[in-house]
Amino acid sequence: MYATAQHGVIPKISFDWSEKMPKTPVTVVGLGSMGSALAGAFLAAGHPTTVWNRTASKADPLVARGAILAATADDAVRASPLTIACLTTYEDTRAALEAASLTGRALVTLNSGSPAEARRMAGWAKDRGARYLDGAIKNVPSAVGAPDTLLYYGGDKAVFDEHRETLRVLGGDTVHLGEDTDLAALYETAVGGTLLPALVGFFQGAAALRSRGLEASTLLPYATKWFEMIISVLPTLTKEIDSGDYSDPASSVDIFHAGAAADLGLAEEGVDVAWQLPMHDLVRRAVEAGHGDRSISVLTELLSVGAAGSSTTAKRP
Amino acid sequence: MYATAQHGVIPKISFDWSEKMPKTPVTVVGLGSMGSALAGAFLAAGHPTTVWNRTASKADPLVARGAILAATADDAVRASPLTIACLTTYEDTRAALEAASLTGRALVTLNSGSPAEARRMAGWAKDRGARYLDGAIKNVPSAVGAPDTLLYYGGDKAVFDEHRETLRVLGGDTVHLGEDTDLAALYETAVGGTLLPALVGFFQGAAALRSRGLEASTLLPYATKWFEMIISVLPTLTKEIDSGDYSDPASSVDIFHAGAAADLGLAEEGVDVAWQLPMHDLVRRAVEAGHGDRSISVLTELLSVGAAGSSTTAKRP
Repeated sequence: MYATAQHGVIPKISFDWSEKMPKTPVTVVGLGSMGSALAGAFLAAGHPTTVWNRTASKADPLVARGAILAATADDAVRASPLTIACLTTYEDTRAALEAASLTGRALVTLNSGSPAEARRMAGWAKDRGARYLDGAIKNVPSAVGAPDTLLYYGGDKAVFDEHRETLRVLGGDTVHLGEDTDLAALYETAVGGTLLPALVGFFQGAAALRSRGLEASTLLPYATKWFEMIISVLPTLTKEIDSGDYSDPASSVDIFHAGAAADLGLAEEGVDVAWQLPMHDLVRRAVEAGHGDRSISVLTELLSVGAAGSSTTAKRP
Repeated sequence: MYATAQHGVIPKISFDWSEKMPKTPVTVVGLGSMGSALAGAFLAAGHPTTVWNRTASKADPLVARGAILAATADDAVRASPLTIACLTTYEDTRAALEAASLTGRALVTLNSGSPAEARRMAGWAKDRGARYLDGAIKNVPSAVGAPDTLLYYGGDKAVFDEHRETLRVLGGDTVHLGEDTDLAALYETAVGGTLLPALVGFFQGAAALRSRGLEASTLLPYATKWFEMIISVLPTLTKEIDSGDYSDPASSVDIFHAGAAADLGLAEEGVDVAWQLPMHDLVRRAVEAGHGDRSISVLTELLSVGAAGSSTTAKRP
């Protein structure tokens, strides 16, 4: 009897080929909290994973999960066609890989650093014959592997295309910004530059509440809404910046200038507010330059010094 | 034939009594962009709305929508049991209401200002016999009246209870923080202190991209995710701050200390980074105080100077 449609039991034959394909062996060099999270994600996805760290004991939890601990950085790099280096700085990365043979190897770095440092690293990798991709992961270690975790890369597109599926193990939102090797560092510092200022602003608020015996946690619902509000105004602000038209402000420089006094008023609530002063100075300079009734986004103009490009020649990466 | 169930047409008799109740007359003093938005929201909700502004022509669009323009601030306050003042500062508010008789009137202020200034304003209002509530609106004028727009108040709870429904016209999320008149200003400066730093950080990123001829709008998807990440870590950070236990960091002081160099690296991309220096100094001082391997939220301790309370005595408002 084949009356399957009637019973709604048409068998669905599906087969996930990727589960049966051999996974690319990967090497992870540098096993701090982020490097360990990266190696853990590769292990979880079934990639043969080789690891190396200057302090070998850091590898223990990963070895217990099936990782292979290489004796040297050179052994580690030789073990896989793809090496991910995740050390604190580019300088640390070069030091760790100094003795490794990189010729023809795909090397991906995932660490913080300036665009200039990324360019220096790219030169170093090229001199050693590596095929080099510089990346940045815009999240905390616990977010590695999540579908909405963002990683972006700049540099050798062939390396990105070849290892795209492997790199997607680290986060579902995986982007190649362009062939310029410093693009990930440029976007990372451009985006990441909001973190410390936003956090210090939040900690200052927590300190003000504490001086009244109030818990920082009582700030949470309000701070959350506030950051959501900030997110909601970014499209308007970028439109102003890219067009150079600051004449129809949602929030004017004058409003922020007037608000500076209130912000400094936290000094009377037992808080050190000195860190705010250069920002208020920036706002004051904008007022003095005649920008008072223009959008606060005009500060971008004051922050641009010796810029090579201009808004009218701006393009997408 | 009454076989309604069968036809699925059971009539639903509903009647919104609130639509038929007479709405409380309201006065709005101060018709900048936010004051005009407030008055507009009251008009839209059917409240008899009296307005006053030093420059009377600012009232024209509201009068065209049915608002009554008072000849003097005193006339304006006399016209309604509830007056909302929305001027730039508390000083402006006192100047605008100097000649108005406030005895027995409910006065609500919605402007930026420090907690100390709010306390001064409360003294002034009390001397004039006003029933006073100090509020803050945590959003832009275009968000006035939206269901998720937040307004919070501190001060005379009886005024809040009496006019709660009227105040909810301005935003669906309407909170009374406590009887202390400066609580709204305290929370406003505590929460709002993240805005300028976060924006300057974003503008700095836009300036870095511009120096490469890249549009600020290309930052949007990444900056949005980044701010969402910041929101996601706030609960953990407040837990650390309220418990005083910074020993299990998601992001350590050392990580931020190492990142400072990369942040300053934007100077090589045509950006003025001087505004960051006091924050880096704060991080460096935290390292020097032995907090390097503790959570970045420990900066709250360094920002607390002469705090009256402590984390162990912290309470909810």
